[in-house]
Amino acid sequence: MTIKAVVFDAYGTLYDVQSVADVTEDAFPGYGGIITQVWRIKQLEYTWLRSLMQRYRDFSEVTRDSLAYTLSSLGLEYDEDTFARIIDKYLHLDLYPDALAALSAMKDRKLAILSNGSPDMLDALVQSSGLDRVLDAVISVDAKKTFKPSPEVYALIEEALHVPPAEVLFISANPWDACGAKAFGLNVAWIERVTPEAMALACLESETLPPLTMFWALRTQMDELGVVPDHRIHGLAELPALVSAQRS
Amino acid sequence: MTIKAVVFDAYGTLYDVQSVADVTEDAFPGYGGIITQVWRIKQLEYTWLRSLMQRYRDFSEVTRDSLAYTLSSLGLEYDEDTFARIIDKYLHLDLYPDALAALSAMKDRKLAILSNGSPDMLDALVQSSGLDRVLDAVISVDAKKTFKPSPEVYALIEEALHVPPAEVLFISANPWDACGAKAFGLNVAWIERVTPEAMALACLESETLPPLTMFWALRTQMDELGVVPDHRIHGLAELPALVSAQRS
Repeated sequence: MTIKAVVFDAYGTLYDVQSVADVTEDAFPGYGGIITQVWRIKQLEYTWLRSLMQRYRDFSEVTRDSLAYTLSSLGLEYDEDTFARIIDKYLHLDLYPDALAALSAMKDRKLAILSNGSPDMLDALVQSSGLDRVLDAVISVDAKKTFKPSPEVYALIEEALHVPPAEVLFISANPWDACGAKAFGLNVAWIERVTPEAMALACLESETLPPLTMFWALRTQMDELGVVPDHRIHGLAELPALVSAQRS
Repeated sequence: MTIKAVVFDAYGTLYDVQSVADVTEDAFPGYGGIITQVWRIKQLEYTWLRSLMQRYRDFSEVTRDSLAYTLSSLGLEYDEDTFARIIDKYLHLDLYPDALAALSAMKDRKLAILSNGSPDMLDALVQSSGLDRVLDAVISVDAKKTFKPSPEVYALIEEALHVPPAEVLFISANPWDACGAKAFGLNVAWIERVTPEAMALACLESETLPPLTMFWALRTQMDELGVVPDHRIHGLAELPALVSAQRS
């Protein structure tokens, strides 16, 4: 099997969604971490629920709705400027430090993003981070008016790149996304960024054990969804070697 | 408008899913609450994800998978007997104390359950709690091989009871379920069991503030999904008067 295209999830995989915590902490001292975590969980829930309800709204709207929910549920009051400042950070998330080098090392394959993000959000992200120079395509689920892990959104890869699923390696740090891509028929590498050992160590060291434990418990282990990704890696830097090894 | 049928969600609405915490606490001292909470969150996530992935498995399987995930993600080891004992409690959940009286007071309408539960789980629950004596129908999403909030599962009410959506009052304590039912076109009453005031008070009194805050933040406030239930009540006891008032 030869991998002709390497396709990346964006949020949580190439871009660190937790990097918004600096802005939320600045706006609501003491709440930066929990806002970021609840917001991310509700953002994903809303993509799944709206897809099932057949009430699609694009990811920028879902992202605003889930932030409004989060601040309200934590009893935090805010003005429009504060809200806009937090949302704006979502268009300029930090790239994981190993992302640009890893992508640059695989320029002999087609490289793309397949993301829940709306086209305007992805354009802003890709340009502000410089990934527009190495990507061949930025694919948004918006074309199908539904979200991951609907099979039809993974089908967009072949439609955009003209590479069949068997020759695509899809990369996600989101366990449920890795499972959805595998169930569809892509080759999948899951990035396990937080190992159980690292989690146990951080719990021992942290004074804010319970909320972190809960977030990690919800989001960082491989899900039990009846499918298993093909590869488990721990960072983007492992990818060029993995892709080369698949060529033979 | 006359309400000819009153249809209830089961888990969290008639039956207290947190009542499993006694068993989880007994099996894993100190972890009873967080197991119950993470389990419930993952159980729901798996219903949504499997529906979107078109990989339906019934609720008893999803419930076991999500418990296995939860124990593993919290680093807890277990044997088969312990696992079976926890799962068994899910077939004998406590009824909310005001449930039987409320249903009995509305016997002049058709009364039913519409639940994600598989038929065998619902049969066990309804019989062990005595609700089989007051219900006209127990409807499982299993007939459609998908979960709430897919519109097609809410359509099962009319198929089973021959009452059109405009004459059905659907009751759920799960905000996303109330939204799904409303989006489909049912009359909906949402039970807000934890008010913001009660939550604030409990946070002040509790030493386990962060995980409870996070669970409540995720699950007890009305969601931002673009629809709003028709009624907001605080317990099942309010229902008979609400239903009578709709008659005029």
